Amino acid sequence: MTIQTDFDTLEVGFDVPALPGMKESEIQTPALVLDLDALERNITKMGDYAKAHGMRHRVHGKMHKSVDVAKLQERLGGAVGVCCQKVSEAEVFARGGIKDVLVSNQVRDPLKIDRLVRLPKTGSRIIVCVDDIDNVAELSAAAVKHGTELEVFVEIDCGAGRCGVTTTEDVVLIAKAVDAAPNLKFTGIHAYQGAMQHLDAYADRKAKLDAAIDMVKQAVEGLQAVGLTPELISGGGTGSYYFESNSGVFNELQCGSYAFMDADYGRIQDKEGKRIDQGEWENSFFILTQIMSHAKADKAICDAGLKAQSVDSGLPFVFGRRDVEYIKCSDEHGVITDPNGALKVGDKLKLVPGHCDPTANVHDWYVGVRNGMVECVWPISARGKAY
Amino acid sequence: MTIQTDFDTLEVGFDVPALPGMKESEIQTPALVLDLDALERNITKMGDYAKAHGMRHRVHGKMHKSVDVAKLQERLGGAVGVCCQKVSEAEVFARGGIKDVLVSNQVRDPLKIDRLVRLPKTGSRIIVCVDDIDNVAELSAAAVKHGTELEVFVEIDCGAGRCGVTTTEDVVLIAKAVDAAPNLKFTGIHAYQGAMQHLDAYADRKAKLDAAIDMVKQAVEGLQAVGLTPELISGGGTGSYYFESNSGVFNELQCGSYAFMDADYGRIQDKEGKRIDQGEWENSFFILTQIMSHAKADKAICDAGLKAQSVDSGLPFVFGRRDVEYIKCSDEHGVITDPNGALKVGDKLKLVPGHCDPTANVHDWYVGVRNGMVECVWPISARGKAY
Repeated sequence: MTIQTDFDTLEVGFDVPALPGMKESEIQTPALVLDLDALERNITKMGDYAKAHGMRHRVHGKMHKSVDVAKLQERLGGAVGVCCQKVSEAEVFARGGIKDVLVSNQVRDPLKIDRLVRLPKTGSRIIVCVDDIDNVAELSAAAVKHGTELEVFVEIDCGAGRCGVTTTEDVVLIAKAVDAAPNLKFTGIHAYQGAMQHLDAYADRKAKLDAAIDMVKQAVEGLQAVGLTPELISGGGTGSYYFESNSGVFNELQCGSYAFMDADYGRIQDKEGKRIDQGEWENSFFILTQIMSHAKADKAICDAGLKAQSVDSGLPFVFGRRDVEYIKCSDEHGVITDPNGALKVGDKLKLVPGHCDPTANVHDWYVGVRNGMVECVWPISARGKAY
Repeated sequence: MTIQTDFDTLEVGFDVPALPGMKESEIQTPALVLDLDALERNITKMGDYAKAHGMRHRVHGKMHKSVDVAKLQERLGGAVGVCCQKVSEAEVFARGGIKDVLVSNQVRDPLKIDRLVRLPKTGSRIIVCVDDIDNVAELSAAAVKHGTELEVFVEIDCGAGRCGVTTTEDVVLIAKAVDAAPNLKFTGIHAYQGAMQHLDAYADRKAKLDAAIDMVKQAVEGLQAVGLTPELISGGGTGSYYFESNSGVFNELQCGSYAFMDADYGRIQDKEGKRIDQGEWENSFFILTQIMSHAKADKAICDAGLKAQSVDSGLPFVFGRRDVEYIKCSDEHGVITDPNGALKVGDKLKLVPGHCDPTANVHDWYVGVRNGMVECVWPISARGKAY
């Protein structure tokens, strides 16, 4: 499939929700809308933070799946590159010109491994995670076959309960095997505590991260003892980056959601107990939706349901409105309470979705707006790249 | 954007999960796989049922969003056409050669209305739902402008609590306005009780449908009293079609999920208390997933998470396995319990997703398999068509 971005051939309302130069009010719904001012402020702020703390920032590209957003993060936020979770995503980013790409996941399928080891031929640095010593030989053989060099992070499960090894012995064992394997380079450690990022209380997140940092510290000491000092120690998300930055252990962050924000992340609290979407980060990412029925006086029906978002982390809230509430949805309908009859058919509302990553993955385009006008329409270039 | 289905230009593992002629075991994961034998049996069975009961079957195309599946339903199941929920979906189906297309939803945006009224120029019959008398003038003016005829169903909210009017007076009022409006034709009634389809107990569903049928009966009598006998009375889904078929009121069904089945629908019971996925319908729709990590002895991590499915109606189950269970997921990971260590890295499993419609909407392709071989790779042609 070809992403055709020659705007002359695209029909508004079929291929794309809008075209540059249209008014924001004319965008066809449901559509993903980016508030470019807010997005740029978020990106700049995190970039400044990383720089001030001497951290590399490898932004999480799997969140937005967009080469355009990644390049904005490089330009305004000093991002060193991206991480992503699938080989097909890495292909989109590397082919799109991102020069440092980490697949922060395990790659075990033979065809996927073959595709992965060919990616350094794009000229980008390619890193992959490993949590099983058997995988080292697989990756090495494929890299030798294609004459490329692949870099490797050993993945530590520091509490998320997904992929990753859990002992320093296993970290050292795999790192030594990587170091000895032809066409592989041992580059460092991947330790991302995904499960704690969404705990509401700052103190709860800190406790989980303290444990994770201890685990990584031990692993680093174990590696140093065998002469394998890791170049990069990578981890840290929107709910934890201050812990990793001040750990003295990590030197690379992997934040994603800070750029867009969503309802679930927005609820978590900073050190002072303030919601992070009311100070630390701005909502820049919205589902624009339109009221299409108001046959019952107290309920308005909008056109954004389950096919315009993921509700895995709860329903969206209506941005900037306290008088109306999105209370349920089905495939193509959202039900919005309207006790005061404030809404009418045709009105458009901005929804802040529960979870930005899988919501972005449902749409094909970001509509970037500024001062009430559509400034850009960016393809969600790695949408559906799940392989 | 162009859907490019010239297979010579598609890369397996990037553009498509498989190509015809490959072995089922070689399909790149995560991918949507259709068991073509089971799918064809479901389609034939429902088609035979509708025929035996003198019902038209307008299959719900928004479920699968695929012209290829809709054509199979016409060929094997005697489907008269499709319904769908969005104008952009209707455009895909009408342009794809489906000759009778209902947008079973309200269309209020001026650009959407303009697109809708142009669709009869494809040669297909186009019907839309209306629940607001103001909409009649909007649709009529646009149809006059483009010189087309648009057919109209008045939508009744018979218990789903979404769009639709709730009194016979309103049905008659709108039908009369449609009948009087230039370039519109009053064709019938749309009454789909979506909310009750998923109630587990047959008796609970029957009670809700009895109330809905009464409501529709009264509306029909009200219309007949003013000389507006509806040609079509349309409704009925996988959880209720036997009620509408035997109502003496409805003459058109709109079933969707029966063709694929999913975990949520599968749980509802037939008259004898038997799960409908253990007799009435077969699972033909699966997410094929692969184990990519097994670093912890009792847990396997697979590659299908929130970006390979919608979990709005619960998690998937592992098809044909009682020893392993899909217990949680994050964006790109699924956690599967493996108490006996039965799974190994590289193994592939079939998941039955919680909800078929929004799960299909995440993927770009259906991989049709038969006898262990990939027979077809169909684009999900209306994927993302939410406008």
